[in-house]
Amino acid sequence: MEAIEELAIQPCTSSLYLRPFRLCYRQNGTKKFWDFMRTHDSVSILIFNTSRQCFVVVKQFRPAVYMCELERHHPELFENQDKEGLSRVEDPLPAVVGVTYELCAGIVDKPDLSLEEIACEEILEECGYRVPVTNLRKITSYRSGVGVTGSRQTLFYAEVTDQMKTGEGGGHPEEGELIEVVEIPLEDSMKFAYDETFPKTMGVIFSFMWFQTNIAPKLPKK
Amino acid sequence: MEAIEELAIQPCTSSLYLRPFRLCYRQNGTKKFWDFMRTHDSVSILIFNTSRQCFVVVKQFRPAVYMCELERHHPELFENQDKEGLSRVEDPLPAVVGVTYELCAGIVDKPDLSLEEIACEEILEECGYRVPVTNLRKITSYRSGVGVTGSRQTLFYAEVTDQMKTGEGGGHPEEGELIEVVEIPLEDSMKFAYDETFPKTMGVIFSFMWFQTNIAPKLPKK
Repeated sequence: MEAIEELAIQPCTSSLYLRPFRLCYRQNGTKKFWDFMRTHDSVSILIFNTSRQCFVVVKQFRPAVYMCELERHHPELFENQDKEGLSRVEDPLPAVVGVTYELCAGIVDKPDLSLEEIACEEILEECGYRVPVTNLRKITSYRSGVGVTGSRQTLFYAEVTDQMKTGEGGGHPEEGELIEVVEIPLEDSMKFAYDETFPKTMGVIFSFMWFQTNIAPKLPKK
Repeated sequence: MEAIEELAIQPCTSSLYLRPFRLCYRQNGTKKFWDFMRTHDSVSILIFNTSRQCFVVVKQFRPAVYMCELERHHPELFENQDKEGLSRVEDPLPAVVGVTYELCAGIVDKPDLSLEEIACEEILEECGYRVPVTNLRKITSYRSGVGVTGSRQTLFYAEVTDQMKTGEGGGHPEEGELIEVVEIPLEDSMKFAYDETFPKTMGVIFSFMWFQTNIAPKLPKK
């Protein structure tokens, strides 16, 4: 995952993935506009393996996270970018600064499937566990990126056992996905959550804390 | 805040606010590219007013959130958009579906100021409390929008009193900001956090729960 080479950046004049729009409106009599991105809603799942008392999360190289770190060290990187040019990154950082721990997650882009069904598909594809839809418990939903995307993210909790493991997970390598499944032992989880040397999403921190409050007290004592 | 009229959308071919880039790279031998947006890091602050035992949050109309809801009801909205055209929104939803509850927050765009100093400025500008930098306690940092922006968000906790209130807050109306300060009584806060009829960020839900675990047990009993 961490062999990242031949980095180059260029301004992106057209993208299948980033679709910017402008909303013009009048608020309390004042004309305004706001630029935003059209995105999909998403689901994420806190997975707890009861056989081995650990959380199952994923990690992957995130170019956007990597570039934030690179810019912190090389603030000149995005300056003097002409409209079309491709700039080689001459002194890249190690790829590990862009490797991010996240909950298993996916976008909501299948109108025929429920959020729960999409969540179960992601658990299987990314983490290799076959989970019945009825095993999912909805934690809550919230808004992400309210300035730019504003999409709705729905967070689920799923308990799995080693017997449910039917594959390796890892996403779709043929589509370029390179996802590593990581197990975080329950006893180390809060230390991990607050250890900022491991870049992670708020979803990981929040859901680990939610577990401590809502699930841990009911776990059978060892 | 909720008088929103004359809505129209158009594709956004160039924006001062959305700056898309493409990163080309080779990962484990495979050539890839990823489109991302350059953004600023940010700070957010959980504010607790000890005089009246309430949280101080902000709410504002978020066009990106509003458009997500609008698309849910009018999926055809973004179809057939030509490159330049402006489309009137004929049957808009009430603006309240785009009004989002958030922590006081701001972007990190002043190289001379520390994160704590920027946080204190935001507390004053948005919520009207003058807080000494030494009153801030860092909770943690995390990554937001790892697919698209990947910026680092740092979350602080600040206790305030009524005596620290020196203004009304509300942001910079002259720059188009229209921010309403909202107080959430401590005793209602977890019910509010999980009530999905109030759109909110994960930062609100997470930080309210963090307070319950880390601060509430040490509060003086009434």
